[in-house]
Amino acid sequence: MECGSYQLIKKSSECRARRGKVYTARGVIDTPVFMPVGTHGSVKGVAAEFLKSSGAQIILANSYHLYLRPGTEVIKKAGGIQKFNSWNSPMLTDSGGFQMFSLSDIRKITKDGAEFQSHIDGSKHFFSPEKSMQVQKDIGADIIMCFDDCAPYCSDYEYAKNSMELSLKWAKRCKEEFYKDDSYKTQSLFGIIQGSVYNDLRIRSAREMLNVGFTGYAIGGLSIGEPKKDMHSVLKNVLPVIPENKARYLMGVGMPEDLWECVERGIDMFDCVIPTRNGRNGQVFTSLGKINLRNAEFKKDFSSLDPNCACPACTGYSKAYLNHLIRSREILYLSLLSLHNIYFMVDLMLKIRKSLKNDTFFKSKKEFFEKYYSRDKFSRNLCSKK
Amino acid sequence: MECGSYQLIKKSSECRARRGKVYTARGVIDTPVFMPVGTHGSVKGVAAEFLKSSGAQIILANSYHLYLRPGTEVIKKAGGIQKFNSWNSPMLTDSGGFQMFSLSDIRKITKDGAEFQSHIDGSKHFFSPEKSMQVQKDIGADIIMCFDDCAPYCSDYEYAKNSMELSLKWAKRCKEEFYKDDSYKTQSLFGIIQGSVYNDLRIRSAREMLNVGFTGYAIGGLSIGEPKKDMHSVLKNVLPVIPENKARYLMGVGMPEDLWECVERGIDMFDCVIPTRNGRNGQVFTSLGKINLRNAEFKKDFSSLDPNCACPACTGYSKAYLNHLIRSREILYLSLLSLHNIYFMVDLMLKIRKSLKNDTFFKSKKEFFEKYYSRDKFSRNLCSKK
Repeated sequence: MECGSYQLIKKSSECRARRGKVYTARGVIDTPVFMPVGTHGSVKGVAAEFLKSSGAQIILANSYHLYLRPGTEVIKKAGGIQKFNSWNSPMLTDSGGFQMFSLSDIRKITKDGAEFQSHIDGSKHFFSPEKSMQVQKDIGADIIMCFDDCAPYCSDYEYAKNSMELSLKWAKRCKEEFYKDDSYKTQSLFGIIQGSVYNDLRIRSAREMLNVGFTGYAIGGLSIGEPKKDMHSVLKNVLPVIPENKARYLMGVGMPEDLWECVERGIDMFDCVIPTRNGRNGQVFTSLGKINLRNAEFKKDFSSLDPNCACPACTGYSKAYLNHLIRSREILYLSLLSLHNIYFMVDLMLKIRKSLKNDTFFKSKKEFFEKYYSRDKFSRNLCSKK
Repeated sequence: MECGSYQLIKKSSECRARRGKVYTARGVIDTPVFMPVGTHGSVKGVAAEFLKSSGAQIILANSYHLYLRPGTEVIKKAGGIQKFNSWNSPMLTDSGGFQMFSLSDIRKITKDGAEFQSHIDGSKHFFSPEKSMQVQKDIGADIIMCFDDCAPYCSDYEYAKNSMELSLKWAKRCKEEFYKDDSYKTQSLFGIIQGSVYNDLRIRSAREMLNVGFTGYAIGGLSIGEPKKDMHSVLKNVLPVIPENKARYLMGVGMPEDLWECVERGIDMFDCVIPTRNGRNGQVFTSLGKINLRNAEFKKDFSSLDPNCACPACTGYSKAYLNHLIRSREILYLSLLSLHNIYFMVDLMLKIRKSLKNDTFFKSKKEFFEKYYSRDKFSRNLCSKK
């Protein structure tokens, strides 16, 4: 199978959800899949062997960060990012476009690319679509992304249109650069559909990206502040444009609610920093809902975080001890809760894939949220729309 | 065997070093032993199962910190500190005297005890010897320490004398309080010898503590800024006073050099925050010496930290990747390097015990430091005195 190619296994009879496989040189990924994020190559606080034990199939890194530190020369010498970080399994790198525009101090975008100043030391750099491809080839992730311009939320139509058109031009140059050598034999290039919340722009972006032709397609520029209904509307309009035999990746999403809602609309791949970021804040996902483990109510709660979870935090410690670690700022909780939240997301995706196997998507979704919101009646009412 | 009692196995024919066993309700400890420190009950950044895999036999917690947070009620309800933190193996608690005087904002010492303000919330508390015993009984460590007054380094003779005499009076009250119930069946109480750097005070303290009679004896108030020769002089004077059938614990020590030097002088037990604190600063102990892993020289060094170490950092990652984690402030390195340094200390004590078994203490010490200082000629010269 071509690297990055998608195989459809089964479609839901109830909605656009689907079960499939994405093929990479480092293994086959069952979809729908959640990809934990390791911006600098390390999923924050979680050692590779634990990540593996969680059942995570593929992780994400960021080429903007890795290009600046440690630099592509180091990663190339290490034998690629998967060897460098000892994950040794499929990885995806974002192109760095989004981070360049959100993190760097000064930028100048021309049709050729983007000039930016490092957020680390202020040094000046220039990324063109070609440069982004070279960087991502050197980093060596299994799936790499087109260099794109991401319009901020609340961009007006004209801004979003120009940004989408620029991303399209860059995507063509990315493809050309990518296929200049043998990299396609071990890596695959995904295109990114832009267009902000404007459905006509999104549809045009999708159609024109398809004309260029990529192994898989991502939807970028969402989950950056827009209302959920706008995100769902984009998915509703864009996903039918993408052929069934291509993977669809929704970038930067999501929360447990998002995973169900967006799989329902046809998404195959997700990534988000939420599990680790929430973990570091003491916010924990459990089968009975989200809890803030710092709260006083857990000070004398000697039960495990989630009796249904097999992670080290749940099997090894009580809520009371984890609460104590948080309150005492003992760094051990950072790793334990980050890993727990990854276990939760991976397990959630397993539940979703199982529901698709049994063609019980809506029943399973309902069961999940009945439990998930059982701690919180207010939230349950919010969810009862389905 | 009585809890906390010491069994002498073998004495070195070359020096005062000795191999032995300390008996506790949760297991037998081979000495000389290094005890990793978990001030709040958690050895910083290291999960209990990893601590176990390092070969650590006993860890230390601090009753001052645990009393303030989470409070003894929580720990008692959890079934003791060893259940609370899932370590389930021998533990020792310091009495809190030292921390009370070094951390709390305001204090008033009377002959009855010490009034102090919490460093967390400013709340006022009073610790008497009796209170310290009650707190340490509730926490439930296998070995607990007398409540003492620790004179700062550079105290004049008069101050040190008064402080030592106060500690002695408190030690008597600690013993009385400790044996009021059945705690001695599962816990043991160690006395603490004080007297600053004044050998006559130290010898008097040791003799009078022996008159009171404890299961084991600690030497407190050292490694707080005094020159090494003063520490060694105290050990030389005090240790011969303590009978052979009692464990001798040197509090707050030490560095790899200290462990060899102080075992040589007759110490059985050590504790120190160095392995974890250094780990969090990127300072790593290896069989070839101490290195600062943050240094640029490791940026492209793809070899393992220490080929002789079996810890997850050494078996899973390269120096280059760990250097990248440090420079990118990726929290994963905090755990990995802390655990590595613990492995190093545990392994060092194993080497020392082995040298005592074979009665090759000085030969083994020389071999260790020839390797340990091989990276650094300056340090080697410093060490060549032996």
